Amino acid sequence: MQIDLNADAGESFGNWTLGRDEELFPLISSVNVACGFHAGDPLTIKRTLELARQTGVAVGAHPGFPDLVGFGRREMAATPEEVYADVLYQVGALWAFLKAAQMPLHHIKAHGALYNRATKDPGTARAIAEAARDFDPQIPLVVLPNTPLEAEAQKLGLRTVAEAFPERGYASDGRLAPRGTPGAWIHSPELAAHRAVQMVVEGRVEAVDGGWVEVRAQTLCIHGDNPNAVGIARAVREALEAEGIGIQTY
Amino acid sequence: MQIDLNADAGESFGNWTLGRDEELFPLISSVNVACGFHAGDPLTIKRTLELARQTGVAVGAHPGFPDLVGFGRREMAATPEEVYADVLYQVGALWAFLKAAQMPLHHIKAHGALYNRATKDPGTARAIAEAARDFDPQIPLVVLPNTPLEAEAQKLGLRTVAEAFPERGYASDGRLAPRGTPGAWIHSPELAAHRAVQMVVEGRVEAVDGGWVEVRAQTLCIHGDNPNAVGIARAVREALEAEGIGIQTY
Amino acid sequence: MQIDLNADAGESFGNWTLGRDEELFPLISSVNVACGFHAGDPLTIKRTLELARQTGVAVGAHPGFPDLVGFGRREMAATPEEVYADVLYQVGALWAFLKAAQMPLHHIKAHGALYNRATKDPGTARAIAEAARDFDPQIPLVVLPNTPLEAEAQKLGLRTVAEAFPERGYASDGRLAPRGTPGAWIHSPELAAHRAVQMVVEGRVEAVDGGWVEVRAQTLCIHGDNPNAVGIARAVREALEAEGIGIQTY
Amino acid sequence: MQIDLNADAGESFGNWTLGRDEELFPLISSVNVACGFHAGDPLTIKRTLELARQTGVAVGAHPGFPDLVGFGRREMAATPEEVYADVLYQVGALWAFLKAAQMPLHHIKAHGALYNRATKDPGTARAIAEAARDFDPQIPLVVLPNTPLEAEAQKLGLRTVAEAFPERGYASDGRLAPRGTPGAWIHSPELAAHRAVQMVVEGRVEAVDGGWVEVRAQTLCIHGDNPNAVGIARAVREALEAEGIGIQTY
Repeated sequence: MQIDLNADAGESFGNWTLGRDEELFPLISSVNVACGFHAGDPLTIKRTLELARQTGVAVGAHPGFPDLVGFGRREMAATPEEVYADVLYQVGALWAFLKAAQMPLHHIKAHGALYNRATKDPGTARAIAEAARDFDPQIPLVVLPNTPLEAEAQKLGLRTVAEAFPERGYASDGRLAPRGTPGAWIHSPELAAHRAVQMVVEGRVEAVDGGWVEVRAQTLCIHGDNPNAVGIARAVREALEAEGIGIQTY
Repeated sequence: MQIDLNADAGESFGNWTLGRDEELFPLISSVNVACGFHAGDPLTIKRTLELARQTGVAVGAHPGFPDLVGFGRREMAATPEEVYADVLYQVGALWAFLKAAQMPLHHIKAHGALYNRATKDPGTARAIAEAARDFDPQIPLVVLPNTPLEAEAQKLGLRTVAEAFPERGYASDGRLAPRGTPGAWIHSPELAAHRAVQMVVEGRVEAVDGGWVEVRAQTLCIHGDNPNAVGIARAVREALEAEGIGIQTY
Repeated sequence: MQIDLNADAGESFGNWTLGRDEELFPLISSVNVACGFHAGDPLTIKRTLELARQTGVAVGAHPGFPDLVGFGRREMAATPEEVYADVLYQVGALWAFLKAAQMPLHHIKAHGALYNRATKDPGTARAIAEAARDFDPQIPLVVLPNTPLEAEAQKLGLRTVAEAFPERGYASDGRLAPRGTPGAWIHSPELAAHRAVQMVVEGRVEAVDGGWVEVRAQTLCIHGDNPNAVGIARAVREALEAEGIGIQTY
Repeated sequence: MQIDLNADAGESFGNWTLGRDEELFPLISSVNVACGFHAGDPLTIKRTLELARQTGVAVGAHPGFPDLVGFGRREMAATPEEVYADVLYQVGALWAFLKAAQMPLHHIKAHGALYNRATKDPGTARAIAEAARDFDPQIPLVVLPNTPLEAEAQKLGLRTVAEAFPERGYASDGRLAPRGTPGAWIHSPELAAHRAVQMVVEGRVEAVDGGWVEVRAQTLCIHGDNPNAVGIARAVREALEAEGIGIQTY
């Protein structure tokens, strides 16, 4: 039994650093590298791939909305045509550094408000999936299961990778508890680790409103911008390995 | 006998349009497409490639300094490492749209102040050439002959394409007459066309300070942002064809 | 009897020009000058104010969302705190050029998606109004009447200026016909002029769904990015003057 | 006897934080607040002014080149007209937040490569000084003494404030030792403090190439982005106070 652990990475920008990539990469199996629209810049991408190579993590593209000051976390009313072009641009930009480093592009995962919008809006979801397909139909797309993002990607014949969030609360209907509501975030590494094991071994997790919710996951996301991201990643990894679950990418 | 005619293209940005690409493309054989740092945006790139396909021009990447408000025309003290990463990023971004459209990347040509700096500074020249080589060592790099840009590219084993400027005055030492000096720009389509023929047929052109200067050219550049770019391109093309010279890319 | 005619202005950016400000300014009485977030740049602002001084139009600030590639026309999920700070920043930036030119700041009007959002969302409306008040409580705020934007501004004691759109269709409930629906745009200068007179003289206009709708207007907006903006402005101005209505700002 | 201690501040951007403003402000008497072109964003400006008010430091504008990814540290070939407009824009943007907070604008100091260029290039220096004068001729301009920046500002009748750098090595000709050369940076808080006292009490400091160099200073700059900025500021302040020199702005 095995599972992928992913985290956002390469989120520094110019003179500003963010995240503890050096400590986090050895604990996980894949990273979503910012492509310059919401975070990341050409030099940061280059250095992030060097670190990824050294630590052996698989590198995915992490395109976001063109909103640097908002870190890609503010929903924007971009048209599907704009989303398509923005995603294709960012994937290509990252890919050039992978090609130069003779490393493969492992997956694509949309960032922040773009990801969230695609879990609700089929037009956005389809635009992301089309960009991924037109770039390379073999590249897996990371999706929130049971959402338009998964559905549209599968309609286009893309391989999808279902993602779950051990640090996030789930409602009993399967949705993530909205940020700002009670239980939306799990801060304890031990509890996050416990939930990660539940998700992988039992395919379910305790819901914020009581009872259980089914969770389908091929990758678990660790939030790299969490101040305690490294502690959580370590606890999750150790708890999974203690259950005999290998941390390995898809 | 044949020669390539190139022009900058895809220089619109968002709501702002620039250039008359629709009229210009049928008159030339290759275009240098802005990649988003000094001009161009993802949707503009997409539309520019569609036009290139329809008109049959070959598409090259046209990376520039990250200076949108200055249109990449202001020299910036970027380090070679920054230049390398900026060029690689932009080439990859354009390449994604070419891949989606199943079109090849034909060449790379630096834009504006980045190009100019590379004709004087070996560190900048080498950084551009390394980015081109690391992306794909088979892609030709357009260069100003007898400059560090040509030399560094050739040291790395890149194929270089020598460029000349029928609309620009040349000093007798072979350099372009600096902008703002008398004779720096040729405004008459007839004269530009005459000089284009001289360059291709005789391998020389009249210098601004009298006498002749040798010119080595595999491609002639038409300035697409010139208000009369279309008229000049037409005159140059017709004059060349009248001499039996085919307009065809390398 | 008199009315103000306003139009957006200073919407060029760097090397890109937009609008025919030179022709439009003599026909209107006030302009909304882009402040650099969705259009405009420092030099463009400077030049736009010089033109405003020569032509005698009153200058207002026109802050927008920080979305250059989208021209501020895409709604963004900015928080009220972000909207407040973005508006204050842009008003101050424009104000510096007015101060240097010894010209007064005449009004503030939000741009594009920021304006639209403020006509629906009280939080956005209040943030804009607070920024205007904190900058200078004497400066009028241009608003769409009967919306949260008007209400929130009046709650804060700001002077509001009601705006109407002779080129836009109105539904019988008083709202603008959504873009893309039949009758949303009036393209005929004669019809726009006719409607402008109705709005000012009769305080009403014909609705797209039949019947009449009351319109309260202290300023009429001419869309400067319309290719025929100059023709429409001229027709509107002449029709109003023919009725003895002076074109003069509030 | 008294001296001003200044530091750059408000250098965070969106989701990225930089500097330890909370700890630094109580140790110094004036801050140079980034205005959004090389660092800072509207919300960061707002929060920085709140902190300045609480800690009682005087707030100056810190305009830089429009180069966010390069943190304004890369020289750009901006024309004087562009520099003038960029400075005016940034000063106005900051001023709006000061006005809203009913705080005065205390001084103007150019940032990074813009400051450096103005210490060598009279055209850049004059453009900065003109922008300062046109905004408000009463506002002091912080300058490196004996440079075109000081000379051009004084020609325009501006009040100049001479600045010295206790953490930087000086050559015996009075210039700063170039970054990257031996002795260019003083890392020891004790030594920086010792030099600060020399500068203020004796009007001179030991040069990197032996001997002494005269230093004229009304303000001493502490580099806020130095990881040990707080330690250096504290050592400098304590050493000055031990000599009976008050830390107080001009």
